Amino acid sequence: MEVRDCLISAPGKAILHGEHAVVHGKVALAVSLNLRTYLKLKARSDGKVCINLPNIDTFVCWELSELKQLTSSSDKKEEIQRLDAELVKSLREFIGVTNGNLDSSASAILAFLYIYLSLFGSGDMPSLTVSVWSELPTGAGLGSSAAYSVCLAAAFLCATGNIPTPLKEWEQTGRWCQEDLELINSWAFQGEKIIHGNPSGVDNAVGTWGGMLRFLAGKIIPLSRVPLLRILLTNTKVPRSTKVLVARVKDKINKFPSIMIPVLDSVDAISCACEKVLTEMTCEPITGDHYNILEELIDINQHHLNVIGVGHPSLDTLCQVTAARGLHSKLTGAGGGGCGITLLRPETDSTTVQGTMKDLRDRGYDCWETSIGGPGVQQHFPSSVKEEIMEVLNQY
Amino acid sequence: MEVRDCLISAPGKAILHGEHAVVHGKVALAVSLNLRTYLKLKARSDGKVCINLPNIDTFVCWELSELKQLTSSSDKKEEIQRLDAELVKSLREFIGVTNGNLDSSASAILAFLYIYLSLFGSGDMPSLTVSVWSELPTGAGLGSSAAYSVCLAAAFLCATGNIPTPLKEWEQTGRWCQEDLELINSWAFQGEKIIHGNPSGVDNAVGTWGGMLRFLAGKIIPLSRVPLLRILLTNTKVPRSTKVLVARVKDKINKFPSIMIPVLDSVDAISCACEKVLTEMTCEPITGDHYNILEELIDINQHHLNVIGVGHPSLDTLCQVTAARGLHSKLTGAGGGGCGITLLRPETDSTTVQGTMKDLRDRGYDCWETSIGGPGVQQHFPSSVKEEIMEVLNQY
Repeated sequence: MEVRDCLISAPGKAILHGEHAVVHGKVALAVSLNLRTYLKLKARSDGKVCINLPNIDTFVCWELSELKQLTSSSDKKEEIQRLDAELVKSLREFIGVTNGNLDSSASAILAFLYIYLSLFGSGDMPSLTVSVWSELPTGAGLGSSAAYSVCLAAAFLCATGNIPTPLKEWEQTGRWCQEDLELINSWAFQGEKIIHGNPSGVDNAVGTWGGMLRFLAGKIIPLSRVPLLRILLTNTKVPRSTKVLVARVKDKINKFPSIMIPVLDSVDAISCACEKVLTEMTCEPITGDHYNILEELIDINQHHLNVIGVGHPSLDTLCQVTAARGLHSKLTGAGGGGCGITLLRPETDSTTVQGTMKDLRDRGYDCWETSIGGPGVQQHFPSSVKEEIMEVLNQY
Repeated sequence: MEVRDCLISAPGKAILHGEHAVVHGKVALAVSLNLRTYLKLKARSDGKVCINLPNIDTFVCWELSELKQLTSSSDKKEEIQRLDAELVKSLREFIGVTNGNLDSSASAILAFLYIYLSLFGSGDMPSLTVSVWSELPTGAGLGSSAAYSVCLAAAFLCATGNIPTPLKEWEQTGRWCQEDLELINSWAFQGEKIIHGNPSGVDNAVGTWGGMLRFLAGKIIPLSRVPLLRILLTNTKVPRSTKVLVARVKDKINKFPSIMIPVLDSVDAISCACEKVLTEMTCEPITGDHYNILEELIDINQHHLNVIGVGHPSLDTLCQVTAARGLHSKLTGAGGGGCGITLLRPETDSTTVQGTMKDLRDRGYDCWETSIGGPGVQQHFPSSVKEEIMEVLNQY
């Protein structure tokens, strides 16, 4: 079997509002982050299957004959709600990681092999090379593993013919229909389970659908239309443990329930108010008032996140540095360091943006100018992808 | 009639928690601020009545014969719930301020004459000099006018014999019993009405009783016992209008009710939690944990006050400067500039205190080391009062 080459990308994710509150039954808004992961699938004719992940220094090739021995006995292509535990076990043995936690390289390989074998294992297995390059920092809570899993799922589902290749000859990019996206999302979720154990499913849903999702009590609802918002994404690079931060919030709620429960209610109302404004922005002329409200909501939520105990001096600095230029920031995700987002207004000029980015980099932070609310997984015509990314991918 | 000389002081007030929330039906905690106003009453024998207010550059003498013509026709000494409008009108004519708002000098004179004439007017009017010196900045929301009215009321009620002079020969200071304090408070409230128009009555109650008061839906409840807490009081000297700030909060609640109402509920719970800790501190050994909670409550409330829109960059600076030395601050009163309080722990050493005060003064702020929760109005033996204050008062 020979596959057709293809080029696919999927976005990262950021939490716009509702991080932590979502753990306590409140709404969270997850948005696509237009720092993307790009996957190039290329057919080979030498009977090898290769993966190149230069971001995490991982380059591996296998003989098809080796992989054929790993095929799961049962054909479970249709039943993708649960992981095939037998296949995971044999894959772990195959790559020699039977015990404990996986590093990012091992978990990326495992997710690759799992989806490859699940989708091709019952038929003709193709010789191919998958190369992936991501603009996202890894391990920063920005959904880099989900973007990777979404790209893998989309590429292999196209290669097997389970879904069409949506790219029309005269277009730069192509998107799939709802049904196909659901299939991509299901397989990407399998990859996330392998990498994270017990993921919420939000990251792969954002990577698949893009735009904005409402997440409430385990239910994920893609929101039909949202405006594209320019932002700065800042990584303070202060390491934090999501688990420790979640526990800290829980302790604070137990210590001061009558003070903290209203704060979670207020965060919930912020998410709802934000969703309302964003919806309005798609169906009426966008005004400065819309942005004023978005900025106010960011400021209020950042105070609330400090109140529930997930602030950090590095995030205070982010807020101060951007406030000095009239910009509004909040942490995104777990807090306690990690990443923050800064809203840019349509009229924010490049001098302000560049100056702010310089100020933040001078403090040792990484900083990107990007957007939220952009498209989910898509197929690209190579010329539509930034040259520097194609240069990386064409090395393999 | 000849009066006996006496020396009286009353404290200022600060809001510990609940400013602004109290306007929306929530609890506020008002505490005495141990920056005090001192009043010296001295008998004269030349038929004159004089007042010296060096803080506001006000020095006036009248002939008793002039004042006797102003006496209100009806004897209303017992009916002190309402202002005697007729007397106020004739006093305004007497001092020549019939129109519009009063400046601090005119309103202080008016309050003096009103209480003097109300208490002495129906009988023998004494020739005397009242001299007042205050450690409080005026117009900073720290209850300086109430402390002045409380001192006036106590001094004149003693002079008329309506209440005893509580100072025993072998004591430095003397306090009045509950019944006498209530009488002082009633007359001080009259003074406040003349100065402020429609005061809440909190400031004169704090000046009278000291300690801490709970204020809820217009009801003022003095709390029996509270610990004395060391604080820094900082005046950012950024001018603000309480009226404008109250309106701003109201607008924000109307704009985002579902976000703001829970924040007010959380502020209410902060006041209750603070009252509980302070009560515990009076009946069990004081520990570091008590102070940790007080600090946490200060931080949370300061975030909430920012959320409801009464923060100011000068107050952010106060918080940052004190946080750099491990101290916790919040605005007190109206916000939008104005004053802030910084809690000092028992173990906070003088190097830290002096260094913090220097940092704050370097930013152009006024800063005092003082305490909250101290005694209300009291009579002093002159030697119990700081020399520099007696020096000022003895000039007159």
